[in-house]
Amino acid sequence: MDYPNDQAPGAPVRAGIPEHGRVPKYYAVKTQLAALLDDLGEGGLLPTERDLSERYEVARETVRQALRELLLEGRVRRAGRGTVVAGPKLAQPLALASYTEGVRRQGLRPGRTLICLDRFPCPQGLADEAGLERGEPVWHLERVLLADDERVGLESTYVAVARVPRLDTDFDPDSSFYGYLRDRLGISFGDADERLETVLATPREALLIGTPPALPMLLIHRVSRDTEGRPLERVRSLYRGDRFSFTTHLGQPLGTDDKN
Amino acid sequence: MDYPNDQAPGAPVRAGIPEHGRVPKYYAVKTQLAALLDDLGEGGLLPTERDLSERYEVARETVRQALRELLLEGRVRRAGRGTVVAGPKLAQPLALASYTEGVRRQGLRPGRTLICLDRFPCPQGLADEAGLERGEPVWHLERVLLADDERVGLESTYVAVARVPRLDTDFDPDSSFYGYLRDRLGISFGDADERLETVLATPREALLIGTPPALPMLLIHRVSRDTEGRPLERVRSLYRGDRFSFTTHLGQPLGTDDKN
Repeated sequence: MDYPNDQAPGAPVRAGIPEHGRVPKYYAVKTQLAALLDDLGEGGLLPTERDLSERYEVARETVRQALRELLLEGRVRRAGRGTVVAGPKLAQPLALASYTEGVRRQGLRPGRTLICLDRFPCPQGLADEAGLERGEPVWHLERVLLADDERVGLESTYVAVARVPRLDTDFDPDSSFYGYLRDRLGISFGDADERLETVLATPREALLIGTPPALPMLLIHRVSRDTEGRPLERVRSLYRGDRFSFTTHLGQPLGTDDKN
Repeated sequence: MDYPNDQAPGAPVRAGIPEHGRVPKYYAVKTQLAALLDDLGEGGLLPTERDLSERYEVARETVRQALRELLLEGRVRRAGRGTVVAGPKLAQPLALASYTEGVRRQGLRPGRTLICLDRFPCPQGLADEAGLERGEPVWHLERVLLADDERVGLESTYVAVARVPRLDTDFDPDSSFYGYLRDRLGISFGDADERLETVLATPREALLIGTPPALPMLLIHRVSRDTEGRPLERVRSLYRGDRFSFTTHLGQPLGTDDKN
């Protein structure tokens, strides 16, 4: 069987091209563009759509469709009026550590922009999920997540007012909420359950994060508890799918857990 | 501030509709359709595109765009010539356990269909990632993943021939590879590193899994080692983003790890 021995194990098999059946024209262009991206290297400027359509002898709309997929996947990005080769996705650890710590570990400067801080009676759904009382006052803290001033995500934190009564006056929304809990209130995280899925950005989210609407996003749902096992927060974190990946280390559930 | 108190904490804030600016027409229809899905319940049949375009007084193309997003997100699915409300996404644990175990735990019947089993000299990229020797013979086992006979993913496993010399004659490709390693060769998993991202299905992948091309997928890269810390396999697992979510339990990295 003919096998391309230089295939990267993380890449689609046979560049994703079917063994039989028709290869969509835009996809053939996308495959050629992917090779061009490798040649140009990170930050390299792509030729214009017109140049590319002449080079590959296809309609401009075909080039546009190929570029659109590369953009959604984060392999190219817009820069001014041109398109350049994007760097690798950020690799954020799935861990109890905060967004702030994770981003810092990758050598980037974390930031947050406050969108809103609401206070309202806990609805039934939130009460069920986060182990709170229906009707008890809860905060909803919504912030855009930044990495080196680039908007990369949107985070909604729901937390009981009883746990953080002075969140509205005491807390700098551009700082780490986890740092605030730890340093100001002496609250430490014990454990959390997370669920990760892919969704499309809504128009509101696209506007706040500055992405094209319907960009595939990574959505992480988190319910966390403190070291005493008491419910702490329910978080909905949305990350740009073209900019983020998540890493985890898996060990045996029981027994040898001597990871370094 | 006007806050919808019945908002589900896992849902986009304010149904994803911007506070200011224009709401795209298709998105307004999508929001109304989402409420309709709740009323209909899982398996419920949606009205036709024509009926919906009359009901919401929009062009059929607008209805089609809204339905397309709901389809990509797995909130509706095609059934025969109609469209029905889909069930919740499968919640597969991020764990050393195999796909087989994870799917079974959710009450579904796991299956696999062999696409190919190749044998070739280990390329440099794979050697670097998986801790193998460049040029040593490796297997590439590619299988479609099934849940209750539905195609839900595509998995490429790369493993040294030296570890599993008789993979081509000894192993039933519709069975669990991890079960085979454990029961026939006495090899147990020690630990693994995983990286999770969202990508678009390539035409080949879409054809093999039976999804629309460019459907957002969840891609998991895994490099695993046996209990002695020796490299075992490099896996590229692609799951339908409309059918899968992944769950994990996070504890403190050091100290109390008494999860139940």
